[in-house]
Amino acid sequence: MTAPERDEKIWTAALLIIGDEILSGRTQDKNIAQVALWLNLQGIRLGEVRVVPDKLELIGEAVLQLKARNDYLFTTGGIGPTHDDITVDAIAAALGVDVVIHPRARAVLEEYYVTRGGLTDARLRMARVPDGAELIENRMSGAPGIRMGNIFILAGVPHIAGMMLEALTNQLEGGLPMLSRTLGCWVPESEVADLLRETEKAHAGSQIGSYPFFREGKVGANFVVRSTDPDTVDRCIAAIGSGLVSLGYAPVADGI
Amino acid sequence: MTAPERDEKIWTAALLIIGDEILSGRTQDKNIAQVALWLNLQGIRLGEVRVVPDKLELIGEAVLQLKARNDYLFTTGGIGPTHDDITVDAIAAALGVDVVIHPRARAVLEEYYVTRGGLTDARLRMARVPDGAELIENRMSGAPGIRMGNIFILAGVPHIAGMMLEALTNQLEGGLPMLSRTLGCWVPESEVADLLRETEKAHAGSQIGSYPFFREGKVGANFVVRSTDPDTVDRCIAAIGSGLVSLGYAPVADGI
Repeated sequence: MTAPERDEKIWTAALLIIGDEILSGRTQDKNIAQVALWLNLQGIRLGEVRVVPDKLELIGEAVLQLKARNDYLFTTGGIGPTHDDITVDAIAAALGVDVVIHPRARAVLEEYYVTRGGLTDARLRMARVPDGAELIENRMSGAPGIRMGNIFILAGVPHIAGMMLEALTNQLEGGLPMLSRTLGCWVPESEVADLLRETEKAHAGSQIGSYPFFREGKVGANFVVRSTDPDTVDRCIAAIGSGLVSLGYAPVADGI
Repeated sequence: MTAPERDEKIWTAALLIIGDEILSGRTQDKNIAQVALWLNLQGIRLGEVRVVPDKLELIGEAVLQLKARNDYLFTTGGIGPTHDDITVDAIAAALGVDVVIHPRARAVLEEYYVTRGGLTDARLRMARVPDGAELIENRMSGAPGIRMGNIFILAGVPHIAGMMLEALTNQLEGGLPMLSRTLGCWVPESEVADLLRETEKAHAGSQIGSYPFFREGKVGANFVVRSTDPDTVDRCIAAIGSGLVSLGYAPVADGI
């Protein structure tokens, strides 16, 4: 018997974070989790992430590799007006296209800066796109994000990146969203390793993660079950719960 | 005239974060910034970061690529006792070596678990290492990290990873640490793009980053100057400061 829902295409995306400030440790990344959670709501899985410095050839190399391996590629960072903002140049060079001024981006920036000192040469840099790109408009800062085929070029500042994601919500084709439920327990994870392994094996299409912690002087763990099928998630959670009870532990619904 | 300090070797490291929980957005990564800051104190630059799922072949592929391109490779995650902890297996397979029980790791775990229910099979998984590896001991949880040549295999839980880094402090060869200073200003970064570009160009060996923000209803930016040479850092900061003043803005020492 075929099970068509299992053969359904899994849509994946990669995220490329561009910025010396992440690699120097100066800035704590917030975009991985934000992009991951948003993608999941679109039925797209974040398959891999890379962080590269502000260097043309390293950005270009990562763009080509990640684009080839995934349905979508998102980038964050490097689209502002200063000399260290080279994402557009790097992506255009990697794709072998020119950088052009996008007329609608210029118009958006002209309007935005009309009360803010006018559109200088530096600000006009933010209207530069790889030839053939469309805009991802952003009601906050004027400067738009850029869509070039399956590449989505977002700002690095998390709340601006978040607004660009909002503009893309329900615009991208995806599959079934990955569902998840969590069960917590005050138990050393090593005590329940067999239970988790066997539960995962017994439920095709499930993934079970174990995330230990040490709090209030005690060890515990959260067990996260993921699947695109809600019944599978529920059955795994029930199996882990009754397994914990028979080992003498008390499961905590929705995690600790 | 030669300038030997400019030819000094730059030591680089890559970081490979292994874990579905980061890619699902469930867990906010804290290890990138922690590893980056620690590496910099060792005179080593974090050159690139990748995040991959708990999949043997993807971990192995990333390990081989990152190891070949950097002096050091650090991994975080996937070294616990449960079925989703496959980092050791993936690295051993990628390197073409067996997985063995490290006798000292077994002894450490036996001692640790003597008052905690004994060393079960699941717990003994944490003594498994790629053949030829050394341990990175960890006073917290018993389970050690692993050093395999230039690969350092750390825990995913940030405070345990941090203790493993502590154990490695001053153990790795590095070069000059990257120094940095910050100047802040309530100015749209697009107003000072030329100043930043020209200052960077005029100071060989400097890198200037511009990080805009929007706070208290106003735009501003922090300008971060990085160099291995303290004089270069100071001269760049002074040049940006006086440039801001001549444009009519008030620089804020050490950033906003």
